[in-house]
Amino acid sequence: MNLNIYKNLKRGVESNFINLNPIQRGGVLTVEARKAVLEFADGYSVCDYCFESRVDLVQNPPVRKLTEDIAEFLNMDDVRYTAGCRHAKWAAMHMVGKPGDTVVLDSLAHYTSYLAAEANRLKVVEVPHSGYPEFTIDPHGYAEKFEEVERKTGSLPALALLTHVDYRYGNIGDAKAVGKVCKEYGVPFLLNTAYSSGIMPIDGKRLGVDFLCGSGHKSWAASAPIGILATTYEWNQQIFDKSTIRGDWSGRGFTKKEIALFGCSPVYGAPLMSLMASFPSVVERVKHWDKEVENARYLATQFERIEGFHQMGVKPTQHTLMAFETLPLFEVAATTQKRGYFLYHELKKRKIMGIHPGMSKSFKVNTFGLSRSQIEYVANAFHEIAREHGIPVE
Amino acid sequence: MNLNIYKNLKRGVESNFINLNPIQRGGVLTVEARKAVLEFADGYSVCDYCFESRVDLVQNPPVRKLTEDIAEFLNMDDVRYTAGCRHAKWAAMHMVGKPGDTVVLDSLAHYTSYLAAEANRLKVVEVPHSGYPEFTIDPHGYAEKFEEVERKTGSLPALALLTHVDYRYGNIGDAKAVGKVCKEYGVPFLLNTAYSSGIMPIDGKRLGVDFLCGSGHKSWAASAPIGILATTYEWNQQIFDKSTIRGDWSGRGFTKKEIALFGCSPVYGAPLMSLMASFPSVVERVKHWDKEVENARYLATQFERIEGFHQMGVKPTQHTLMAFETLPLFEVAATTQKRGYFLYHELKKRKIMGIHPGMSKSFKVNTFGLSRSQIEYVANAFHEIAREHGIPVE
Repeated sequence: MNLNIYKNLKRGVESNFINLNPIQRGGVLTVEARKAVLEFADGYSVCDYCFESRVDLVQNPPVRKLTEDIAEFLNMDDVRYTAGCRHAKWAAMHMVGKPGDTVVLDSLAHYTSYLAAEANRLKVVEVPHSGYPEFTIDPHGYAEKFEEVERKTGSLPALALLTHVDYRYGNIGDAKAVGKVCKEYGVPFLLNTAYSSGIMPIDGKRLGVDFLCGSGHKSWAASAPIGILATTYEWNQQIFDKSTIRGDWSGRGFTKKEIALFGCSPVYGAPLMSLMASFPSVVERVKHWDKEVENARYLATQFERIEGFHQMGVKPTQHTLMAFETLPLFEVAATTQKRGYFLYHELKKRKIMGIHPGMSKSFKVNTFGLSRSQIEYVANAFHEIAREHGIPVE
Repeated sequence: MNLNIYKNLKRGVESNFINLNPIQRGGVLTVEARKAVLEFADGYSVCDYCFESRVDLVQNPPVRKLTEDIAEFLNMDDVRYTAGCRHAKWAAMHMVGKPGDTVVLDSLAHYTSYLAAEANRLKVVEVPHSGYPEFTIDPHGYAEKFEEVERKTGSLPALALLTHVDYRYGNIGDAKAVGKVCKEYGVPFLLNTAYSSGIMPIDGKRLGVDFLCGSGHKSWAASAPIGILATTYEWNQQIFDKSTIRGDWSGRGFTKKEIALFGCSPVYGAPLMSLMASFPSVVERVKHWDKEVENARYLATQFERIEGFHQMGVKPTQHTLMAFETLPLFEVAATTQKRGYFLYHELKKRKIMGIHPGMSKSFKVNTFGLSRSQIEYVANAFHEIAREHGIPVE
C-alpha cells in the first residue's frame, strides 16, 4: 500500500481557470461557506448541541430556523435535508408508493430519478420529449400517460416527476402546467429543481408542487452531499412519517426519527453548514437570474457565429446550462493526432475547463456565476480555436 | 427572514475544550484532512475528472486506489462509499432482502440499524443482551433466533446484523463467533463497525463477515457524511448490482450505476477527500489501539474512585467509549438549582464538554485520541466536582 499518494491532495483545478462544467457552477462555495466548512469540518460538528434527536431541529447552530426560512424561500411548508437530491427523490417515492407502483416522469429526467424508482421497486413510464432540436416536454403528455397507466394497471401512477430544468439542454419544463394536470388527476407531483432552486426564483405553491427536491451542491453553493426535500402541510405527515418499528425483545422504539431519512439525515457537518452560510447569498442571487440568462444568451450568440455551431434546446436559451451541436469540431478531430481531445487541450492552454474531454460532436456548458468579461474571454477563446483549425467565424 | 443569523457561524466549541462526546472523538479531522476539505469543498469537486460514471472509479484524485486500499486494510474484497453508515446498512439489507423478510440483530444495535430495516419493509428480531451491569450479547442467541424465525416464517432470516461495538456501553461483540453461527446456518452476516473500523484493527475475513459497514465521520477522521460498505467477492455482484431499469419510451438505461447506492454515492467532496487525506493516519493509528484502551481504563479507574461511580458494560473496558452509572450526581442534582444541568455547567467552567446536559444518573464518555495528560485533567476535574458537592473520592 503506497500511502504517499494520499498526501498533499490537490484538485488539479487552478483557481484562475474558468470551469464551464454544468454540474460545477451553482456549487461554487461563497466565501462565507468556505469559512463555515473549516469551522464545521469535523465528524459530527453540528451535533454538539443536538437535544431533539434530529438535525433539522438543532437550534445551535440555527438549523431549525434555516429549515423554516428555506420553506418560506421556496414557498413550501416544510423542509428536510437529505444526502443529495437523489435521496430526496428516493424518500418521496418511498413514502407515496409501494413496490410495483408506477412513476410517470419526463424522458429528460436525470438518471437518479430512474434509480430512485428502481431502488423503491417502482416502474417508470416516460413522457416523451419533442426530439431534435428543441427536446421539449408537453405537459399534456402527463395526462396521456396517467390515463395509459390507469388503463393498463387499474390505478393511477403513485407519483409524477418533472425535471424542472433538464441537465441535457437546460430547458425549463412547464411545471405550472404539469402541476395543474396532476391536480386534475389527483396524482402527487414531485418537481426536481436540482438546476433551478438556489439559482433562480422558485414558488412551489404557485407551481402546484406537492414535493420539491433540490441539490445544495449543484445549485445552493454548498459542499456535497446535501439535498433538500420540501413539501406542503397536506403531505408532510406522510412524507416525514415517523418510525414505528419496535424491538420485539427490548421494546425499543424511535418515534422522533423519520423513516425515509433513515432516521436523521447525516448531513451534519460541512454540507449543512455551507448551505446555511451561503443561504443569504442564495436569497440574493436568485433575484439576478435575468442577468445570468442574458449572459448565457450572449455566449450562445457568440458560439453561433462559428460555422456549424448550433444551440440545441429551446431558443433563446432560458437557462445558463446550454448544449451546442458542434459538428465542425468533430471534423477537425478526425484530422488531428489528439482526436476528440484536441478541444480539451486547446481550452486547457487557455485556462478553460469543464468541457467533457473527447466530446466534439456536441458539448454542454454552464455560465452561471461567470462575469460578462469571463464569458467574453470564453467566446474569444472558442473563436480563436475555430479560426486556427480552419472553421470560419462570422 | 433575518438572514443575519447565518453570518459568521461558529461551532461554539473552543479548540481548547476537551470534547468527551462519544460520537465526536473518532471524527476529529487530521491536519491533512482539514487541508483537503478546503481544497475540495466546492459542490462536485471530485467530479472534475470523472470519466467512468461513478465516484469510486475516479482516478484523479486517486479514489479508485483508495477503494482498493480500504478493502485491503479491512481484509475485505470490495468497497463502496455511502452517505453515512446508515445508508450502507440500508443498501446491504436492500440487496439481500425483500419486503416482509426478517433481519436478526443484537438488541444493542444503533437506531439506524432498525430504521434501515424499516425503510426496506423488513421485520426485526432481536438477540437479547444479558442486562445490567454487563449488557453482553451471547453469539449463541443468533442461532436461537435463526431457528425461531425459521419455525415461525418457514425460512431463515435474510440477514444477521451485529453491532461490533455498541454505542451504549462500548462492549465489543464477539463477531467471530457470530460469523461462525451465520456460516453454519447460511445467513449472510453484516457487521456494523461504526465504532471499530478506523480506530481499531479489523480483519473482515477472519471474522467471517459478508458485509462490513463503517462510519467515516464517526471513526475515520472524516467530514460527514461518509460511510463505507465493504464486502467479499462472493457477494459484491449482488450487493453492488447494476441498474437494469429502462425508459419505456426512450430506451435509456444506466448500466454502470449501482442500485443500492442510488446510482453513484454523492460523497464527492469534503467527505470523501477528508477520508482519503486521513487514511494514512488511520492506518497508523489502529496500530496503537492498545494504548487507547489503556488510557480509557485509566479514566475508568479514576472515575470509580468517586463513591457510587461504576463503569457499566464489560470490565475492564475493551473500548474508549464507556458508560458510567453515577447515582450520587443524581442525588446532588436534586439539591441544586440547576438540577441535572449542574454537571454540564461545572464541566463547562473547566473547559470540558460532550456529556449530555441534564444527564446525571449515568453518562457516557469517549477518550479516543485524548492524550494521557488530557485524561488526567478530566479525572481531576471530576474528582474536584465530586468533592465540592460532598461526594467522597477515595
